[in-house]
Amino acid sequence: MAKKHILIVPGDGIGQEVTAVGKKVLDKIAARFNHEFTYDEALIGHVAIEATGDPLPAESLEKMRNSDAILFGAVGHPKYDNDPSAKVRPEQGLLKMRKELGLYANLRPIKLFDELLGASSIKPEILKGADILFFRELTGDIYFGEKGRKNNGDTAYDVAEYSRYEVQRIGRKAFDAARTRRKKLVSVDKANVLESSRLWREEIQKLALEYPDVEVEYQFVDATAMILIKEPTRFDVVVTANLFGDILTDEASQIAGSMGMLASASIGDGTGVYEPIHGSAHDITGKGLANPMASVLSAALLLDISFGLKEESEAIISAIDQVLKKGFRTRDIADKTTDPSMILGTDAIGEEILKLL
Amino acid sequence: MAKKHILIVPGDGIGQEVTAVGKKVLDKIAARFNHEFTYDEALIGHVAIEATGDPLPAESLEKMRNSDAILFGAVGHPKYDNDPSAKVRPEQGLLKMRKELGLYANLRPIKLFDELLGASSIKPEILKGADILFFRELTGDIYFGEKGRKNNGDTAYDVAEYSRYEVQRIGRKAFDAARTRRKKLVSVDKANVLESSRLWREEIQKLALEYPDVEVEYQFVDATAMILIKEPTRFDVVVTANLFGDILTDEASQIAGSMGMLASASIGDGTGVYEPIHGSAHDITGKGLANPMASVLSAALLLDISFGLKEESEAIISAIDQVLKKGFRTRDIADKTTDPSMILGTDAIGEEILKLL
Ligand SMILES: CC(C)[C@H](C(=O)O)[C@@H](O)C(=O)O
Ligand SMILES: CC(C)[C@H](C(=O)O)[C@@H](O)C(=O)O
Repeated sequence: MAKKHILIVPGDGIGQEVTAVGKKVLDKIAARFNHEFTYDEALIGHVAIEATGDPLPAESLEKMRNSDAILFGAVGHPKYDNDPSAKVRPEQGLLKMRKELGLYANLRPIKLFDELLGASSIKPEILKGADILFFRELTGDIYFGEKGRKNNGDTAYDVAEYSRYEVQRIGRKAFDAARTRRKKLVSVDKANVLESSRLWREEIQKLALEYPDVEVEYQFVDATAMILIKEPTRFDVVVTANLFGDILTDEASQIAGSMGMLASASIGDGTGVYEPIHGSAHDITGKGLANPMASVLSAALLLDISFGLKEESEAIISAIDQVLKKGFRTRDIADKTTDPSMILGTDAIGEEILKLL
Repeated sequence: MAKKHILIVPGDGIGQEVTAVGKKVLDKIAARFNHEFTYDEALIGHVAIEATGDPLPAESLEKMRNSDAILFGAVGHPKYDNDPSAKVRPEQGLLKMRKELGLYANLRPIKLFDELLGASSIKPEILKGADILFFRELTGDIYFGEKGRKNNGDTAYDVAEYSRYEVQRIGRKAFDAARTRRKKLVSVDKANVLESSRLWREEIQKLALEYPDVEVEYQFVDATAMILIKEPTRFDVVVTANLFGDILTDEASQIAGSMGMLASASIGDGTGVYEPIHGSAHDITGKGLANPMASVLSAALLLDISFGLKEESEAIISAIDQVLKKGFRTRDIADKTTDPSMILGTDAIGEEILKLL
C-alpha cells in the first residue's frame, strides 16, 4: 500500500476539464489497489494571474515542493498571444515551475494505439510499429537564456545556452532509457550552424563511449522534422534540446493519431510533473469536447515513474486500449468510419474508462 | 531576347550531379526561346575548402556579385558534422554568401505534382490541393547572432536576434505574395516564450493593418509543425524566422512527396540564388541516383523571378509534369506500384526532361 500526496494543477482552458478526469482515474486506482492518495489543488497560468496577479504564486510553488507528484493541465490564453507586449504571461508560470523544481528532463512517449492506426493523417503502413520515446531537455536553451530589447527597443534578442553538465544529465537519461528499449538513440541538433549544438554533440559523443551497446545517430533538426513523417519507425529514443524538442514532439503527435492521446513526464531534481502535451485549447474550452485521454495517460505515467506502481499504470493503459477497442472515440480521434453515436464528450469517455478500472 | 550571365555553383556531394542537369535545362531553354545565356562556375563549401582553405573564396563572391543569377547546388560534408570542434566548415560558405548578397528572403514553394500524390507518407486525401508558399527569413535570427563559448569552454551560446526592419522587409514580401494568391498568411513564431518572436509578431500585426484584404493567422511554431501534417491545405503563404523556416520547410517537403522535388529562391538586395532544398546527401553521392528535379525546378524559379521569363519557366514545369505523367521516376519518388524499368538515374531522367523542352 502506497501513501502519497498528489497535487492537481489544472491551469487554463481545457486543462480544467481533462485534469478532472485524470484525478478520478487516480482515485479509482487508489480504491482498487488499496493505496491512500490525498490531494490538493494549486493555481498556475492565466487563472493564477486573474486570482493573484502572479502566474506562479509562492503558495502554489510551496505546495508543489511538498507533494509527491503533480498532475498538470495546461497554461495559456489567447489574450496574451495577441498582445506581444504583455509583461505578465501564463507561460511564465509553467517555465518557472520547471526551473524551480529542476525538471530538466521531459519524457514524451509517442505510441500509437492499434485502434487509432487510421486516425492519423499519415498512412497506416508508414506508422505501423512506430514507438518513439523523446527526451526533451526542459530547463535550458533559448527558453531560459537572457532575453530583451536593445537599440531603443528596435531589436529583440534571446540567448540560447547549454553547459556541458546540462547536456550530460539529459543525455545520460536518454542513453539509460535506450538500453532498456531497442538500444537506438538519435541525438538531434543543428551543429552545422549553432555553437550550442556543437557542444551538445560533443557531450553526446563522449557519453556514447560509455554506452557501446547503444547505437547512436546524429541528425540535424531539419532532417529529423522530415524523417519523422517519412519513416517514423526508424526512431527508438530521441534526445534533443528544449526548443527542438518542443517542435518535434508536437509534430510527432501526428504519429499517435492526435495530440489528445499524448502524455508527458517532466522529471529531474524535484517533484515530477505529469501533463498532456496539448495546450489550453481555448477554442473548445467549456464545451465538454476535449479528449481527456492524454491526462489519463499522464496519470499512468505518474504512477509508473514517480511512484513505481507499474501494475497500476498498466491497468490504466489497458483500460484506454479497451475503450478504443469498444469503438468509443472523442471528436479529435474519430474518422469517417466512426459511428456518430460512439463519439463521446470529455466526461462520458472518462466514465467509460472508469468502468474498466 | 534576353542576354544573361548565370553563375553555376554546384558545391558539395550531389550538388555537382543535379546542378549539371539544371544547367543543361537552362541551355536548352536559351536555344528554344532564343536567349543568350553565358555561364561561369564558382567554388563553395567543402570543395572550396579543399581547393583554397576558404568555404567562400573571394573570387567566388566576386563572381556571384557580377552575375545575373546563381544556380546553386548544396554544401556540407560528413567529415565536419562528426567533428563539432572543426573551425572551418562548408556551411560557413553558404551563410556568408546569403549575408554578403543580402538574400534575406528565402521562398520555398511546396506544391505537389498530381502524379506524386501517392509518393508521400501522408494520405492522399489529406494532401490533395495543398499548395504552400513559405517565406523564410534568411539573414537574421540565431544563424547570424553572436555565438561562442564561455566559462572556460564549459558553456556554449548563440544569440537569436531580430530588428523591426528585418521583420518588416520579409513580412512585406509575404503579404505581397499572399495578395496574388489565396490571400491567407500564417505568421509562425514562438511569441509565448521568445522576445524576438514578440517583436516579430508586433511587426506583422502592424503590417496587417496595411493589408486588410489578407487574412492573417498567428501560430506558435510547435502548433504549425503539427498542423502542417494534419491539415496542409489550411496554409497558403507562411512567413517565419530563419530557424523555424529551416525546420518547417524540410518537414513540409513530405507534402510534396519528396525533398527531391523542392526548389527554393533566395532573393533580396543582391544576385538571386536558386537551389534545391535538399542537402549534399553524401550517402548517394557519385552513384547517379540523385533526383535532379529540384535543381531543374530551381532553374525554373530563376528564369521566373530573376529574369521575368514566365513562359520559359512554365515550359520547364510542364516538362517535369509530363515526365512524371509518362511514369518516369527517380528512386526517391518511386513506390511499390512503380514499374522498376521506369526508375531512372540522375542523367537519364534529365534526358527525358530535355526531350520535352
Ligand atoms: C506553453 C509553452 C511555453 C510550452 C513550451 O513551449 O514548452 C508548451 O508548448 C509545451 O510544450 O509544454
Ligand atoms: C546547410 C544549412 C546551413 C542550411 C540552413 O540551415 O539554412 C540548409 O539546411 C538550408 O535549409 O539551406
